[in-house]
Amino acid sequence: MSELDFISHIKNAGTSLEAGLVGIGDDAAVIPANLRGFAVTTDMIIEGRHFDLSIHSLEQIGRKAMAVNLSDLAAMGASPRYALVSLAIPERLGADRVKNLWAGIQKMADEFNVIIIGGDTNSWSQGLVINICLLGEPPEGGCVLRGGARPGDGIFVTGPLGGTYESGHHLMFEPKVRLASQILRTARPTSMIDLSDGLATDLGHLCAASGVGANLTRQAIPVSPRVDLNLPAERRLGRALTDGEDFELLLTLSPESIPRVEASTPIIKIGTVSSEPGIRVDGVHLVMKGFEHRFGLSHQLPDLVIGKQR
Amino acid sequence: MSELDFISHIKNAGTSLEAGLVGIGDDAAVIPANLRGFAVTTDMIIEGRHFDLSIHSLEQIGRKAMAVNLSDLAAMGASPRYALVSLAIPERLGADRVKNLWAGIQKMADEFNVIIIGGDTNSWSQGLVINICLLGEPPEGGCVLRGGARPGDGIFVTGPLGGTYESGHHLMFEPKVRLASQILRTARPTSMIDLSDGLATDLGHLCAASGVGANLTRQAIPVSPRVDLNLPAERRLGRALTDGEDFELLLTLSPESIPRVEASTPIIKIGTVSSEPGIRVDGVHLVMKGFEHRFGLSHQLPDLVIGKQR
Repeated sequence: MSELDFISHIKNAGTSLEAGLVGIGDDAAVIPANLRGFAVTTDMIIEGRHFDLSIHSLEQIGRKAMAVNLSDLAAMGASPRYALVSLAIPERLGADRVKNLWAGIQKMADEFNVIIIGGDTNSWSQGLVINICLLGEPPEGGCVLRGGARPGDGIFVTGPLGGTYESGHHLMFEPKVRLASQILRTARPTSMIDLSDGLATDLGHLCAASGVGANLTRQAIPVSPRVDLNLPAERRLGRALTDGEDFELLLTLSPESIPRVEASTPIIKIGTVSSEPGIRVDGVHLVMKGFEHRFGLSHQLPDLVIGKQR
Repeated sequence: MSELDFISHIKNAGTSLEAGLVGIGDDAAVIPANLRGFAVTTDMIIEGRHFDLSIHSLEQIGRKAMAVNLSDLAAMGASPRYALVSLAIPERLGADRVKNLWAGIQKMADEFNVIIIGGDTNSWSQGLVINICLLGEPPEGGCVLRGGARPGDGIFVTGPLGGTYESGHHLMFEPKVRLASQILRTARPTSMIDLSDGLATDLGHLCAASGVGANLTRQAIPVSPRVDLNLPAERRLGRALTDGEDFELLLTLSPESIPRVEASTPIIKIGTVSSEPGIRVDGVHLVMKGFEHRFGLSHQLPDLVIGKQR
């Protein structure tokens, strides 16, 4: 399959374009000014880091490339609209496998009414790289940011946490786009983030942006049945706190809005926002060591310590 | 340098944000709805294909990654505004070289008043990949597309062509953003495209989109002095017609507007749009063979044939 064949395959694979929109086929796409601004995100997934070609199907990988971006827009409360897809394709992949990759991307786009308006395809002798840039429309009242949590707000997650790598959940998760807009129709979260780096880290980001701390209730943290049931309870909790790529939402709600949202959506309260900095689990400080992907090191599970003073 | 350090380096490196804009640091960037729509493009450049780490500096490579996207927006007549930068960084690159890469990206952004509002950084054991998604504001009257050329229009380029790889021009070219808006202030081109795949191929794209053909004048085609002067004239012309990555603009102008634009901007007339399909050089059909990057093959110069009937 030649590059131009593939572009024409892409062009024909998409849904029909909206009025005023210029899609694939010019130097750039053109989006008419009929939305209330834009939420824009980009995520790159790379072979050996976010997926393994010897285990995962090309369709699953394509699905994930779109899903991680959808999850980011969900965390803003935004409605996904347009995507640009860039590929670095290993020469060893044949046309059929490239089509499967594309099918995964396209199906996920279709499921969320996303129109693919542009992209760039390249082939090379190295690993598969997929970059998607996703544009969406902010909700009424504007996007929900990380920085709005206030002391006394409830802290919620939208589903069970941990065990995402061994279970394949990181490829097959449903981005919480619809749930986010359902929550927003009921009440506006004070802050929201998607769980891509693990609860402890992402809650840390949210707290830092908001200038607050968090008190979590150990029993309330929903450890996924995906996490090995034979592990000691402490280890299972650690996995729920630190495993990346859950792609659930983490949000905070003002005390007044909690009953309304709890009554209408499946959210799980795990704690309360505190004016005291730091994250505590049943009053004990949670300390993260060695986290972050360092250049020069491959992905590593974080070294979590519960109980040391920070 | 850790990933978070690097993101914070990126965050601090940019110019201060506009009112209402949310940049790096949340799940997505937010752009207020104060523009007349958007032109959006994305280009991925990859090691061994678009640059060579053993020859080119990281700053040059970063510069190119931004410049190729700027060139796409120039070809739409759009004004660049916001960029999202995704990186797959080889672990073997140290922090200093990564900073140099970033410096090249940032300098080019600053030069064109582009604000970097988001991105994604990853490290891995394979080659360097840079993807940039660039958003700009369409010009008054909307973007200039490829499909508007009409028989009788003049065909123009903005500078000399060919020899871009051996001269390093493909890294150091100036994207024609300012020239495009200067042209648009004088008269609106009927069509425009940037020369990334070579004049013959890109003129072919423009003609196909417009449903027209082109008659070129051999003597008028500006062969760059970058092309080896010792080559036979026929070979030098071939290089001007087929070398990729010139990043000049190719545009068509209605007969009425030509004198105005020629009087005020440095554009070079190379031919005339024809209702007869195909591209002719001094009346002889130009036939391209074997072009396109095929999956499974590395980049190859096109096999150009002048004189065969298409």
